[in-house]
Amino acid sequence: MKNPRQLGERSILNRIYEGSQTISPGTGQISLPVGMGDDAALWRPRAGYETILTCDWFLEGTHFLVNRHPPEAVGYKCLARAVSDIAAMGGEPRCYLLSLALPDARTDGWLQKFLNGLRTASRVLGCSLAGGDTTRSNEIFINITVIGEARRDEAVLRSGAHPGDAIFVTGRLGEAQYGLRLLLESLKRISPRDQRLRKHFYPEPRLAAGLWLAHHGLATAMMDLSDGLSSDLPKLCEASGVGARIEERVLPRVKVEKKYSNKFDATDLALHGGDDYELVFTVARKNVGRIPEIIERVPATRIGEITAEKRVVLVRKEGVAADLENKGWDPFR
Amino acid sequence: MKNPRQLGERSILNRIYEGSQTISPGTGQISLPVGMGDDAALWRPRAGYETILTCDWFLEGTHFLVNRHPPEAVGYKCLARAVSDIAAMGGEPRCYLLSLALPDARTDGWLQKFLNGLRTASRVLGCSLAGGDTTRSNEIFINITVIGEARRDEAVLRSGAHPGDAIFVTGRLGEAQYGLRLLLESLKRISPRDQRLRKHFYPEPRLAAGLWLAHHGLATAMMDLSDGLSSDLPKLCEASGVGARIEERVLPRVKVEKKYSNKFDATDLALHGGDDYELVFTVARKNVGRIPEIIERVPATRIGEITAEKRVVLVRKEGVAADLENKGWDPFR
Repeated sequence: MKNPRQLGERSILNRIYEGSQTISPGTGQISLPVGMGDDAALWRPRAGYETILTCDWFLEGTHFLVNRHPPEAVGYKCLARAVSDIAAMGGEPRCYLLSLALPDARTDGWLQKFLNGLRTASRVLGCSLAGGDTTRSNEIFINITVIGEARRDEAVLRSGAHPGDAIFVTGRLGEAQYGLRLLLESLKRISPRDQRLRKHFYPEPRLAAGLWLAHHGLATAMMDLSDGLSSDLPKLCEASGVGARIEERVLPRVKVEKKYSNKFDATDLALHGGDDYELVFTVARKNVGRIPEIIERVPATRIGEITAEKRVVLVRKEGVAADLENKGWDPFR
Repeated sequence: MKNPRQLGERSILNRIYEGSQTISPGTGQISLPVGMGDDAALWRPRAGYETILTCDWFLEGTHFLVNRHPPEAVGYKCLARAVSDIAAMGGEPRCYLLSLALPDARTDGWLQKFLNGLRTASRVLGCSLAGGDTTRSNEIFINITVIGEARRDEAVLRSGAHPGDAIFVTGRLGEAQYGLRLLLESLKRISPRDQRLRKHFYPEPRLAAGLWLAHHGLATAMMDLSDGLSSDLPKLCEASGVGARIEERVLPRVKVEKKYSNKFDATDLALHGGDDYELVFTVARKNVGRIPEIIERVPATRIGEITAEKRVVLVRKEGVAADLENKGWDPFR
């Protein structure tokens, strides 16, 4: 007899599609006449816009742990982190393709909760399901392709930073890593509703801030912080053929509770912690005054400047400057 | 000391991008000013075209076996089968995003051969690398997103078949499955160059035939055969709200060698074998005479007709008709 938990691919697809926000034809601006149930989806961007495409892995064991991460958070985060790449270009997300590989044992309760989290993200981020592919595997493998739009010639690349540009970040760095460490190291089980886990479980891609910067033409280069500042800032510098100098003193860092101050260093978390999905962006000196302290409800902090010399240097609180070691996230390290 | 085989993500990305055909800006028809090295890719379809999006899993253990499938074939096939979904809409592939999750031990020789196969497919199919994501995993997981184009309002959906339409297939069915069975069951190791393995290792998406049918407006519905006729034809029928009646007598079947005729049944292979990536399409009765025997070098065979009754029926050589049992590929079965 067939195990009742073992659903066919068809039943799994039905679960995914039922109750999902999907884009329908005739909405005026977005045309997606074909989606689920055909070989592929048809996509037509709005006039005057171009299409942004990005894809992102989210893997059991590598990016999340089944016994530590609630399925709702896995569903939410897999879409939110992929959408963050759209924010990093100053674009708006529109729809996504979901590729899901699951063990049999996850096709029931786990899948339902995962889909609840995914649908919440889809609603909050304005990014509708447009199709995908489902298969069986030994572990949970998720791949998300996000399709977004940017007004023609407004997309912000990594490659436009110039020496003398000021470097800004949104939000507060290290918060997601602090949550992850508490989650992994807490001897007592930490509640999934604990506020300190919020940013690790439910990151907020900085869509409104990215769009504002792109639309006002103020960011010369931009990217999102997924692997940590010490890993990501060098990528922006390399794409732009420049270096950077940042100051510990002004870094907006996670607030570490006093009882953990021996265990966690806020600067280390801010420099090397991944998964914050804040934006790092550069601004020409003459425009620095036009950057508000709060962009679309998110604080923006100036943390240093772009240099001609191709090194990334950290100036410590005591004034000592040294090359910033790349200790961010690298899945192959 | 670091294992020399363990490359960082950066080195792996460099390997992927170097030597890959990539789309560059200013080619006139396709604009993809950003690809590798930024957060996302920018895509602008040609005027008068709309964008087709599809994604496809290709997983070790589920879709291929590392000790049986040469890495070149894995690289070729993962792109070819994803591109087949574009052929099934009557579109043309343009570029793809590669999501690759690899164990450390596969980042060297295996990766290089895989990339050789992938690049061959990219060249042959006219589908350039536009970006992607790489991470580490315990097994090899590949996900491909293909971006294609179809002339506005020419894309062929699954949902347009009407009772009375003739059903056609391209090529010969069951050849890929025959190759797979020989590969898995051969006691002596079968050469990877054996012609009988060709369709299983290096499938040919029917792009030219699909495009011809779409452009001439002759197919009322179309899809590609990836899971097998007995699994896929019911999907086309369901999307169109119809049934089908096909005839064993006229089915273009794989040629099974005489010495294996007790072991393999050509009709079973043709009905239930997956991975052929041939097209199945329907044609209004009045247009049947306009379908040539060979469409863009690929034979097209009429195998039955669409019916109003929502069943898929097989008429056996002896004239007996019975519901066609769905014994095609379902990863969750």
